[in-house]
Amino acid sequence: MIDPWASSSVDYDKLVNKFGIKKFSSVLKDIEDPLPLMTRGVIFGHRDFEKIIPLVNKNKEFAVVSGMMPSGKMHIGHKMVVDQLKWYLKKGGNLSLPIADMESYGARGIDFNQAKEMAVTEYLSNYIALGLDLTDENVLVYLQSEHDPVKNLAFELSKKTNFNELKAIYGFSPSTSISHLYAPIVQVADILLPQIEEYGGPKHVVVPVGVDQDPHIRLTRDISDRFKSKYGFIPPSSTYHRFLTGLTGGKMSSSDPKTAIYLNDSPNEAEKKVKSAKTGGRESLEEQKKLGGCPDQCVVYEMLVYHLIDDDDELKNVYENCKNGTLLCGECKTITAEKMKKFFERLADKREESLEIAKTLL
Amino acid sequence: MIDPWASSSVDYDKLVNKFGIKKFSSVLKDIEDPLPLMTRGVIFGHRDFEKIIPLVNKNKEFAVVSGMMPSGKMHIGHKMVVDQLKWYLKKGGNLSLPIADMESYGARGIDFNQAKEMAVTEYLSNYIALGLDLTDENVLVYLQSEHDPVKNLAFELSKKTNFNELKAIYGFSPSTSISHLYAPIVQVADILLPQIEEYGGPKHVVVPVGVDQDPHIRLTRDISDRFKSKYGFIPPSSTYHRFLTGLTGGKMSSSDPKTAIYLNDSPNEAEKKVKSAKTGGRESLEEQKKLGGCPDQCVVYEMLVYHLIDDDDELKNVYENCKNGTLLCGECKTITAEKMKKFFERLADKREESLEIAKTLL
Repeated sequence: MIDPWASSSVDYDKLVNKFGIKKFSSVLKDIEDPLPLMTRGVIFGHRDFEKIIPLVNKNKEFAVVSGMMPSGKMHIGHKMVVDQLKWYLKKGGNLSLPIADMESYGARGIDFNQAKEMAVTEYLSNYIALGLDLTDENVLVYLQSEHDPVKNLAFELSKKTNFNELKAIYGFSPSTSISHLYAPIVQVADILLPQIEEYGGPKHVVVPVGVDQDPHIRLTRDISDRFKSKYGFIPPSSTYHRFLTGLTGGKMSSSDPKTAIYLNDSPNEAEKKVKSAKTGGRESLEEQKKLGGCPDQCVVYEMLVYHLIDDDDELKNVYENCKNGTLLCGECKTITAEKMKKFFERLADKREESLEIAKTLL
Repeated sequence: MIDPWASSSVDYDKLVNKFGIKKFSSVLKDIEDPLPLMTRGVIFGHRDFEKIIPLVNKNKEFAVVSGMMPSGKMHIGHKMVVDQLKWYLKKGGNLSLPIADMESYGARGIDFNQAKEMAVTEYLSNYIALGLDLTDENVLVYLQSEHDPVKNLAFELSKKTNFNELKAIYGFSPSTSISHLYAPIVQVADILLPQIEEYGGPKHVVVPVGVDQDPHIRLTRDISDRFKSKYGFIPPSSTYHRFLTGLTGGKMSSSDPKTAIYLNDSPNEAEKKVKSAKTGGRESLEEQKKLGGCPDQCVVYEMLVYHLIDDDDELKNVYENCKNGTLLCGECKTITAEKMKKFFERLADKREESLEIAKTLL
């Protein structure tokens, strides 16, 4: 297994130890046909994923919940989630994809029409262009604000949580709007929805998220326990993926164009952005030839690992040639930028058709 | 005008002065064909009712909102509300009658099925038996939990209130459940609902309530202002009626059978309860003959005023004969109990049919 992030800026091991998340590596061997994101350690942690594995391996019933909040632009980092969803769909999972327009209203003041528009043009169409078949009968896409079952469940669940608990988790203050306070409860309802009678009753559910989303997962697991006697809820499982590093070395952010390659960028823009990215190169060419590069700290290499090279041997070659100083940043950037450009050309080709399909979904 | 409550235990004048409620007596003269509850001072206060009067007088468009929380038994005191609703319906008002099952869940933990059952068997059937035509095309009855427009509006409104404000009004604590916190916002949405586009847009609305409900009214008026630019809301008007005194002299309570005559009591029970009520009689028969009784402090007389005598002259006779000592409590109770029994017999006659109609409404 290639694990190029031992020295990553985020200490994922600490996250694992501190919050009771388990290491993904310990269950990896049990997964038949795992995703590269799994074997490469991008998905690094989990809760209760061992309960999902036999269902995935045998194509048995389970559900996957993955929300999208229509509040900005989708960037290349979001592709990770779509790749996981494609894999789960292939493995027999039922996908439930809430569009968190109640959250974007409550937390950001985005009105419902605007959120719907953004969901279609920015999110759903890109999900489709990235190859996820949202018209599959095992996929449910809904707007929170228009989906009665989730609204009703949220209100019911809200009986067993209070301001104190939400404040401790989310840092809310007494002057936080009630709609903002309420938004995480709707999200909890999104995650528990596949287990209500209308959707076939209690079942195993997995939620693939970034580690910053773990507080939601814990709240959901806690609340699921409080309604266990009524609904028989099984606490949802979760997996945690690493963040994609931004072009400048920090976080890739939906709202900062210098850090992110947006899925709606043109192929030429995407290519240019790769070339602008921070690498793990040395101070001088000479030094790099002598010491080799640092792929562990390289945004460009990360793009290859996460998104652009499927073949492990090919990836290993890049890694080793960087380390031993034969593959220099200029050449590597050219190769990567070219791959990115091609990827974006394929995406652009599908854009129009994807948008048409997306428009039919809500 | 007969106003037998100058010395009532609740100081209604103080309520009027302290909270900015206006005296109903000051607008009474403008109302054509007012209700006895109005002329007799049972409805003692209002906010902005002068805006409703021309609409009532001319049978022009306005709406009336009156909620019921399915959490106990209806008692004779609730008849006051139904009498007002009948009057407004006759005057051309559109009645909107929410059943506050989200409140009974949030505040009391009553589940939705139970609330629905209670709403039908206890509330709606009695409203009908009391003579309100709930099948009229100008009457809307709905369960909060099943009425999308009100749920959507509530969430939208919740953007502009917060824990601090609700705490100040309702005394909520940080450990109050979120569903309980949310319930008053749904109630605000109930009151503003007739003004959304789906229901014809901004219009004058009146909410007839007991004075203990004024905090809801003020919150609603405040929130309506915060959404004025979007919805054009007109702050709702309100009227305030006195409480019906309980049989033992305190408050008539849904949950204490010694204090209340329930609408589902049998005619004989109702008769017996009248006979058990606290009167304004003197210590001895002799004293009463000499000094006269105190109808102002008499639960039995109050029943005549609120519910059992429509004719003002007849009522005036009772009042004067009590005051001058010729009508003693025993005889007066017999007369009143007989009227009550007859009233309950008429109610009982209609019960079965009313229940059948009620079952068709939700």
